[in-house]
Amino acid sequence: MQILKYKKNFTHSYSLGATLTFELIKNKPNEIIEILVNDSTSEEILNDLKKLQKIHNFNIVNNKKAFNILSDKENCYVIGVFKKFNTTINNNEPHICLVNPGNSGNLGTIIRSSLGFNVRNIAIITPAVDHFDPKTIRSSMGAIFNLNIELFNSFEEYQNKFNNYQFFPFVLKGKNDLRRINFNNIYDHTSLVFGNEQTGLPTYFEEMPNTTKINHSNNIDSLNLAEAVNIALYQLTNNIKF
Amino acid sequence: MQILKYKKNFTHSYSLGATLTFELIKNKPNEIIEILVNDSTSEEILNDLKKLQKIHNFNIVNNKKAFNILSDKENCYVIGVFKKFNTTINNNEPHICLVNPGNSGNLGTIIRSSLGFNVRNIAIITPAVDHFDPKTIRSSMGAIFNLNIELFNSFEEYQNKFNNYQFFPFVLKGKNDLRRINFNNIYDHTSLVFGNEQTGLPTYFEEMPNTTKINHSNNIDSLNLAEAVNIALYQLTNNIKF
Repeated sequence: MQILKYKKNFTHSYSLGATLTFELIKNKPNEIIEILVNDSTSEEILNDLKKLQKIHNFNIVNNKKAFNILSDKENCYVIGVFKKFNTTINNNEPHICLVNPGNSGNLGTIIRSSLGFNVRNIAIITPAVDHFDPKTIRSSMGAIFNLNIELFNSFEEYQNKFNNYQFFPFVLKGKNDLRRINFNNIYDHTSLVFGNEQTGLPTYFEEMPNTTKINHSNNIDSLNLAEAVNIALYQLTNNIKF
Repeated sequence: MQILKYKKNFTHSYSLGATLTFELIKNKPNEIIEILVNDSTSEEILNDLKKLQKIHNFNIVNNKKAFNILSDKENCYVIGVFKKFNTTINNNEPHICLVNPGNSGNLGTIIRSSLGFNVRNIAIITPAVDHFDPKTIRSSMGAIFNLNIELFNSFEEYQNKFNNYQFFPFVLKGKNDLRRINFNNIYDHTSLVFGNEQTGLPTYFEEMPNTTKINHSNNIDSLNLAEAVNIALYQLTNNIKF
């Protein structure tokens, strides 16, 4: 196929690099359109790809030009081209809910953190940055192929679908201190809710019962979004034995 | 002065942007060499600079060319030029110790997190990335002007100077689980020790008594450095009322 620089309206996207592409092959083999290599791809990687090709039956195409078009990193020797896919988030498992996330790199970091704490369901309330942007895929380190992401048009739509959940909106003046919340009995029906990097959550969230704040000094205005999610995940899983 | 693209061997560095430069002026006014503006700098910022100029007596120089040389961001309208300065870390206050940190952006993020949790002393064991790199200053959001950073040639040198401290080296197979450590009685003499982004801590740290791990799933090999530090700071300050 003809390779063009990624655009949001494409029905396919790209995993740029070997690590990401092996995550793609491992977790979403049915979505692969083709795997691109070039003359600099190592024998070792080619052999690994050929082994996986026998199992999953994808095309390996030498396409030097594609690397110039898609990658600004010199050390990219494998690219996966894949169909964008839909996943749905599960009931009876904890969720991260991101309301209008605006930064591709941040979103990827959050996706990877979530997988790190085995929280495998992320609700995204639109408008939101494109989670299939290759930048997001790269900063997720391939975690995006290994968990569930579902888009909702509004928080209400999400809330109605999961009306058996407790929602914890993270706001600067939250009523609960994260350190004092015991998630033990509600773990499977907990949703940690975070706003946009710049603007935070819309003000109506402040009226919700379980608004939550993270203890930090007033030397800074706020933690950044990825840090806040990371800490919340750590606290949520405080009594989980992995 | 003649403005050149930053190099590590310079005795000066740059704060690129208004927020960073106001942090510089507020916290390290004696280190300012000059403040650069251009024709696009807003009246509001110019007025604020002139007020501070009366107190701190620095030069404000219109130097359009400097912005082309130093900044790749279009929305940079103020640059601070300052002498690199030495600070020393305090006894009787908690420390972060970074052994051979290798990434400018990460280092800045960690500096900002530390300030966020009011841990104001960072020991850096060399070789290490240059903490005065403008990239570090930018990702610290100016926090670098507001805490103490001291370089040591070896961990032993640092350890000998603070031999009244308890050191907690963060390693994947740590003996302590971070969640179960009570820092209450040792808070002021605690040092949280982290290795390089790629290679972690040298293996001899694994023999130390207080090696510590952060609870996460085996879906990922490890948390990234900035995430690990961020979580450790959150746990360290678990009983602090800011």
